[in-house]
Amino acid sequence: MDVTQLREQLAKYNQEHLLQFWDELSNEKKQELYTELNELNLEEVTRYFAKTQHSNTEELGKLDDRLQPIPPEIHGAVVRTDADRLKQYENEGLRLIAKGQVAVLLLAGGQGTRLGVAYPKGMYNVGLPSQKTLYQLQAERILRLENLAEQLTGERGSVPWYIMTSEHTKEPTNEFFQRYNYFGLKKENLVVFEQGMLPAFSFDGRIIMEKKNKIAKAPDGNGGLYRALRDKGILNDMEMRGIEYIHVYCVDNILVKMADPVFIGYCHSKGADCGAKVVEKAFPTEAVGVVCKVDGHYQVVEYSEITLNTAQKRNTDGRLAFSAGSICNHYLTTEFLRRVVEGPENELKHHIAKKKIPHVDTTGQLVKPETPNGIKLEKFVFDVFQFAERFVVWEVLREDEFSPLKNADGAEKDTPTTARHALYSLHQRFILAAGGRFIDESGSEIPLIPSMLNNNAIMLENNETNNNEIQKSCMSYKAPVVVEISPLVSYAGEGLEQSVQNKEFQPPVTLIAPSEKAPSTPNPNLDMPLQIHVINSSTSSAQAKY
Amino acid sequence: MDVTQLREQLAKYNQEHLLQFWDELSNEKKQELYTELNELNLEEVTRYFAKTQHSNTEELGKLDDRLQPIPPEIHGAVVRTDADRLKQYENEGLRLIAKGQVAVLLLAGGQGTRLGVAYPKGMYNVGLPSQKTLYQLQAERILRLENLAEQLTGERGSVPWYIMTSEHTKEPTNEFFQRYNYFGLKKENLVVFEQGMLPAFSFDGRIIMEKKNKIAKAPDGNGGLYRALRDKGILNDMEMRGIEYIHVYCVDNILVKMADPVFIGYCHSKGADCGAKVVEKAFPTEAVGVVCKVDGHYQVVEYSEITLNTAQKRNTDGRLAFSAGSICNHYLTTEFLRRVVEGPENELKHHIAKKKIPHVDTTGQLVKPETPNGIKLEKFVFDVFQFAERFVVWEVLREDEFSPLKNADGAEKDTPTTARHALYSLHQRFILAAGGRFIDESGSEIPLIPSMLNNNAIMLENNETNNNEIQKSCMSYKAPVVVEISPLVSYAGEGLEQSVQNKEFQPPVTLIAPSEKAPSTPNPNLDMPLQIHVINSSTSSAQAKY
Repeated sequence: MDVTQLREQLAKYNQEHLLQFWDELSNEKKQELYTELNELNLEEVTRYFAKTQHSNTEELGKLDDRLQPIPPEIHGAVVRTDADRLKQYENEGLRLIAKGQVAVLLLAGGQGTRLGVAYPKGMYNVGLPSQKTLYQLQAERILRLENLAEQLTGERGSVPWYIMTSEHTKEPTNEFFQRYNYFGLKKENLVVFEQGMLPAFSFDGRIIMEKKNKIAKAPDGNGGLYRALRDKGILNDMEMRGIEYIHVYCVDNILVKMADPVFIGYCHSKGADCGAKVVEKAFPTEAVGVVCKVDGHYQVVEYSEITLNTAQKRNTDGRLAFSAGSICNHYLTTEFLRRVVEGPENELKHHIAKKKIPHVDTTGQLVKPETPNGIKLEKFVFDVFQFAERFVVWEVLREDEFSPLKNADGAEKDTPTTARHALYSLHQRFILAAGGRFIDESGSEIPLIPSMLNNNAIMLENNETNNNEIQKSCMSYKAPVVVEISPLVSYAGEGLEQSVQNKEFQPPVTLIAPSEKAPSTPNPNLDMPLQIHVINSSTSSAQAKY
Repeated sequence: MDVTQLREQLAKYNQEHLLQFWDELSNEKKQELYTELNELNLEEVTRYFAKTQHSNTEELGKLDDRLQPIPPEIHGAVVRTDADRLKQYENEGLRLIAKGQVAVLLLAGGQGTRLGVAYPKGMYNVGLPSQKTLYQLQAERILRLENLAEQLTGERGSVPWYIMTSEHTKEPTNEFFQRYNYFGLKKENLVVFEQGMLPAFSFDGRIIMEKKNKIAKAPDGNGGLYRALRDKGILNDMEMRGIEYIHVYCVDNILVKMADPVFIGYCHSKGADCGAKVVEKAFPTEAVGVVCKVDGHYQVVEYSEITLNTAQKRNTDGRLAFSAGSICNHYLTTEFLRRVVEGPENELKHHIAKKKIPHVDTTGQLVKPETPNGIKLEKFVFDVFQFAERFVVWEVLREDEFSPLKNADGAEKDTPTTARHALYSLHQRFILAAGGRFIDESGSEIPLIPSMLNNNAIMLENNETNNNEIQKSCMSYKAPVVVEISPLVSYAGEGLEQSVQNKEFQPPVTLIAPSEKAPSTPNPNLDMPLQIHVINSSTSSAQAKY
């Protein structure tokens, strides 16, 4: 250990404090700290910090004048596209998949902290009848999609699944997929890699010490993707496999359409090198980033940067001018990625996030601050949109494609319950659209949107009925029709007619493929026995139907 | 007691079973039952029941073909109307108010059962800094509106407040207003009246017995309004006061704009006799009734009657074809009401709601059924839309005007928390629009939509930080900026510039009028001391600004 040289290096970047406890450390701990500090690229990380210190505050005021909405000609939308054209997009997407040119890339660096779990979110079981985790749902959607592409073209392509994890999520993710035998995917088509970490800084640019012999580090944001793609050889791997089109997404959206052929077909047919799937922003203060143009370049403007004036701007038809709500579902070509990671992406400024960072004080005591005491440096995956030569936007329906899982039950939104219900609603509509019906215990048809007026206990004149009972009865009836369709049976509602048309289903109901086992463990979310229907999807119609 | 004659009467309508326990009853109980049965208009109620038995089931299938959307020429919208025109509508509304021609009519027959309380919903305290109840907020909005109308015209008109209660809610409502001295309103301008009750029926048309000497009764739906208006002399009272225009609304919307001058001005300027305020339906399966045309007549189609096909229909611009979501905010002229209650309304068929109705069995034992065993007869307030000669629709922004309180906290939506947050968001926007700013403890400006990326505890490498702590920190930061503006200070954001422009406010913050006392009881929803600003609204600008 050449401590003298290290000390000089640290001094050069004003980080001598990192050795302040050196003399107190055991030899083993000295070694750990020495190794960690030596591996740190001090020039680079202090430069990142310095860059963030320029005029971030002034930009906010000015941003309003520089914002422009997405031009209509590059802003496609499911609801403004006719069925034939949608089918063309879809078939185009399926053909690219059959040729093996499409991959999915999952951003899964985060832990389920807000969700209240200490493991990767993808491993979360939201309480569906099947008890499938997010990862299993996603894996089975890939499998089904490969089948659909093969049915259309006669050719079978694989959709490799790249998963970007962080230091904490890599091992559990690998173990999880191994344990479940990759949910039927080929092992070699699952590529788990790790994003980088960056030190946390105090507001004056000192790296924060988490222990006497350890610096505080955090993942470098989901935009750490680009650096990892290059440095971990992932982009090379993609190129070697002949991948040309990539669907990037975040792990927490239970409805995510893996490698959505409509989205990919749309972007591809427009000759795009980069595209974003969006939902219409519902109201001006909705907490969703917005895809727009800033100084002529495409960008996602974070909701915290938007002023009331801009947020409330409307077109003459009454719609929000800045309505393209980002749902972290992007299309990128490998060609575009290669260009970006080798050049301009490296020069991007990091975003800063002020955090409460536990640290040791000068006496070596651990301090858990009550207010933010430092910053974390991050890049965002959409930071590279500005480098696109042909950028497009594809607007989809929120109720069909977006229901993120962010918080534990009890929060106002984005909980396991809302995620589950979003999936039920979608699958209920799949069956209704395919001509099936839902009936209750008494054989009456359940309407699309069950009325809360019916089937409740009556509020009687003399008030004798126990209030809690009534409330319970009302609350439980509010639960939606419980229906789950295995992704192995249908990816997006296709192929169900033959099995469900004019059939009656009594919820809770699940449709599974012959290869699947019926769920065995009792599910606390179901108050009635689960009705299980095995659907032979090999006999279903060959064409996906949306 | 002429029991023989009563028995004959009952037999005539196939209701002899109501006397099945007669011989077991004490004299006192005999008297009670005799009185109740004698007061019952058997001919009428059995006719109501009989009418509901015709072909309700077949209608559902056919309804799809008969539905038409609202024609654009009668479908106004805040977001498609320019500021000058909005101001014209508003001034027109304020002038009618100043002339004393406008009343508000509250539908408050329901108890807060789903909310988990046994008293009328209007008495509910949602936990605002001020601890004001829904009734107090509504009363103060009326007061402020009368002031605004006076400031504009120099004339002061009263806005009488009619409150339709049911048997259970009338007394508590009266007592509540008395106890709080009518919140500053004149006692004579508050008119509390009671809607009717109807017996509950078994599916085969027998009136259900709740006790051996008592029949099961329930309020006759919010459409019981019309009958009550006529039979309780309320419409006469309105006419004698010179009321010409009525704003009807439901108690549970915390954002309700009492006698909204823009809405009234719009409807009046269109020469409407009947109008509905709506919000755009957010997605096809949203549980909201839709204003539309059925066989050429206007109607609210309940969401349980809509099929997937109809719910998903879209115009070429991608919007839902049936988008006019009813929020129970209606405009009715007294002339229209007079015409309706004297004639066609009486012939309307009741709706049926299947219910679990506790009852005595043939042995006299109380039975609490597990499945629906009977029906309740109801009319709906919007059933009379079909009789309008000039019907109009006015679409407003949900985030500005609609946040209903339906469920207890913990439910997925429409809870005290969501209601509170909706009000905070609106009031935050009032202050921002008037040029005020919000800052946090450290003096930094709080953005319109606080980012969840900042100020959270950092997720550290070694995972030492307690997960629960992190989660708690994240959850609390999700709370919105807490800001409450007393209705006595501003009705809809008007008159704030002088007091807030270029000023900084540190939440939690409340703006109150000089006449108000600062809230004294500690509020569990606030984790910081409340900042109280007294605003002298007499110096505020005379014109309302939206």
